[in-house]
Amino acid sequence: MLLFLAADSGHAGLLLALFTILITAKVMAEIFERLRQPAVVGEILAGVIIGPSVLGIVQPSEILSIFAEIGVILLLFNVGLDIKPKSLLSVGNKAILVGVLGIAIPFVAGYYVATLWGGNFAEAMFMGAALVATSVGITARVLGSMGLLNESTSRVILGAAVIDDILGLMILSVVSSVSKGTINYYAIIATAVSAIVFVIVVGAVGARLFTWLAPAINNLRISKPFFKFGLILCLGLSFVALYIEVAAIIGAFLAGMALSEATEDNPGMRQLSHGVMEFMVPFFLVYIGMQLDVTLFTESDVIMYSLVITLVAILSKMLGCGLGAMNMGLKDAMRVGVGMVPRGEVGIVVAQLGLSLAVIDSKAFAAVLFMAIATTLVAPPFIKLLAPRPAPTDEDIHISDVMTRIG
Amino acid sequence: MLLFLAADSGHAGLLLALFTILITAKVMAEIFERLRQPAVVGEILAGVIIGPSVLGIVQPSEILSIFAEIGVILLLFNVGLDIKPKSLLSVGNKAILVGVLGIAIPFVAGYYVATLWGGNFAEAMFMGAALVATSVGITARVLGSMGLLNESTSRVILGAAVIDDILGLMILSVVSSVSKGTINYYAIIATAVSAIVFVIVVGAVGARLFTWLAPAINNLRISKPFFKFGLILCLGLSFVALYIEVAAIIGAFLAGMALSEATEDNPGMRQLSHGVMEFMVPFFLVYIGMQLDVTLFTESDVIMYSLVITLVAILSKMLGCGLGAMNMGLKDAMRVGVGMVPRGEVGIVVAQLGLSLAVIDSKAFAAVLFMAIATTLVAPPFIKLLAPRPAPTDEDIHISDVMTRIG
Repeated sequence: MLLFLAADSGHAGLLLALFTILITAKVMAEIFERLRQPAVVGEILAGVIIGPSVLGIVQPSEILSIFAEIGVILLLFNVGLDIKPKSLLSVGNKAILVGVLGIAIPFVAGYYVATLWGGNFAEAMFMGAALVATSVGITARVLGSMGLLNESTSRVILGAAVIDDILGLMILSVVSSVSKGTINYYAIIATAVSAIVFVIVVGAVGARLFTWLAPAINNLRISKPFFKFGLILCLGLSFVALYIEVAAIIGAFLAGMALSEATEDNPGMRQLSHGVMEFMVPFFLVYIGMQLDVTLFTESDVIMYSLVITLVAILSKMLGCGLGAMNMGLKDAMRVGVGMVPRGEVGIVVAQLGLSLAVIDSKAFAAVLFMAIATTLVAPPFIKLLAPRPAPTDEDIHISDVMTRIG
Repeated sequence: MLLFLAADSGHAGLLLALFTILITAKVMAEIFERLRQPAVVGEILAGVIIGPSVLGIVQPSEILSIFAEIGVILLLFNVGLDIKPKSLLSVGNKAILVGVLGIAIPFVAGYYVATLWGGNFAEAMFMGAALVATSVGITARVLGSMGLLNESTSRVILGAAVIDDILGLMILSVVSSVSKGTINYYAIIATAVSAIVFVIVVGAVGARLFTWLAPAINNLRISKPFFKFGLILCLGLSFVALYIEVAAIIGAFLAGMALSEATEDNPGMRQLSHGVMEFMVPFFLVYIGMQLDVTLFTESDVIMYSLVITLVAILSKMLGCGLGAMNMGLKDAMRVGVGMVPRGEVGIVVAQLGLSLAVIDSKAFAAVLFMAIATTLVAPPFIKLLAPRPAPTDEDIHISDVMTRIG
């Protein structure tokens, strides 16, 4: 039922929650920009502050989790729009090496730390899996806001993060099978094959197809046809990705990338697409912050475990990805390593799955949650610090905004 | 919990539903544009087709109703952005006359038809109330897509619709009280006073305040500060409107109008705002269509009652509003009358409230539902037909889009 009446406190409550999230996110973003820190960190901290563990003004809910998911889907779609498949293919080999080493070393490191901490086999497997996947959304947001998405290191990071997410989801399905006592090899291979086919088909064939189709799409009678086609493709491929058991954000990223060539000839596309992204993305960032329950961190062993796991997560990812990117030179290798550090929502998903399967206890859960948010908070300042050129001032941002709009 | 995994069929199902809604809405919009009919009608019919009564591919749900509500809120915000308070004030007296007569005549007509049809006092009051409120969203969408929002007739329609919604909500609260056997005069007067104060304060003071504040907002460090401020104001005033028992869409409309002066100096604002509107509005239009359950229309008396109520709804609104606008000349009076015909979601809300209070039976409910959707489907072609200049071709729309973007 559509409710426009005050009688329905549910909708009024939701509107108030969305308003609160948006205003605190933007106030914190402004404060962080003035402190010359990444706005992303401010928006995540806004979630910590208004979430259940500090002020408790806004509670995580099913509906807010959906807004968060649509937010990260639109974020990755916009990231894809800025990246041409050619430029990603040109860093393909490097990205594969970075992605694979960036998974292997954190997984092994997580496994051993958990074992040393007294965890059994299944728990250690889960800790390994939690350290694996990179939160490409956070890194992409930081790189995008600095106008660095087309630097070669950025392309390696994004390519490797896509590979990471696919491999990470496969590891998670293996670990889940192990924890249930069985391994479904057939299902794992089927997922792997369909994921690889999906990425190749959409990345390679899709880009050519939509570049060829773009004039016909622009000739449709509806207003803003190319933008509407893009939104439909974004939701459609996100669903296909979920259906073949890959993360929805991979589908959204590929949808954007497939339209990136044609977007150059549709100057309104980016601005329209930024409009919907800017509305939805704060819900994603704030929701991550809301997941952190600080009351879990009253026991000293939880604090210790959290700090150790976080340190291992940072060092193992930097080591793995840095080694994979070493042939790009030390400085670029460090940039790639740091860019891959944020775990964000993927680590949280692994932790919650582990808890729901009763494989990890509440202390290990708290430690993974801390690691996921801490790596997400820690990385952006270093990404900014290591960036190849000085961060643009706000005047530059405004000018480049105007240029995009006019051009 | 954030779920990016295939394991969660709930999120996958929602993504599929959003994809299905968007693609069928846009296919139907394209078909209707080619038939030279308003795209809005196509999008509502898309909802009828995919909804429970025909194909049953997508079911109405709480989450879809929230997307629909955010959609209509963003629609009215965008309508407000295109209307300056001055231009609305200049038609103020006409709008008040149109709004008041456009409520009185339909209410009395609905009351007598229901009585003649054998309804008791409470049922007749509900039928009257259901014929009252105008769905400003539908009319605004049609006028906006034709670039007619700043015609004087359009301003009278929008002003009268705002008055309509406020008076309609007061009538509904009176009728609800009557059906429960008591009338809370204090609550009704409190709602009326707070609604009037809200409209005057935001409409008159807000516009000056934000025009004055705009340079400071544009100097914030976050990217696209004015757009983000607009989104926050839109959600905030929507909530305030609900809180003081006025429809959320009134708050959104006033938020847009308060920013309309400053928007002229922020050329990117409209395009960004259109981006988020174009994504969300189809969910609103399709959701209206999904409410129509055609299986209710198998009995001949339901069909008869539906047709009579619909005819009375159309004629009484045209008569009431047309009389109110008669001093603008016959042709403009007819334009205003036709523009006020769509009842859309407000009629549906009244009907569902009546059914839940057991005041109206399922036949009267079906008739109101039919009336709400039929008036919404019938009006747009006539709005287009009576428009003061020929509807722009799609080339014009594309050119004006580009102009907006560049200018």
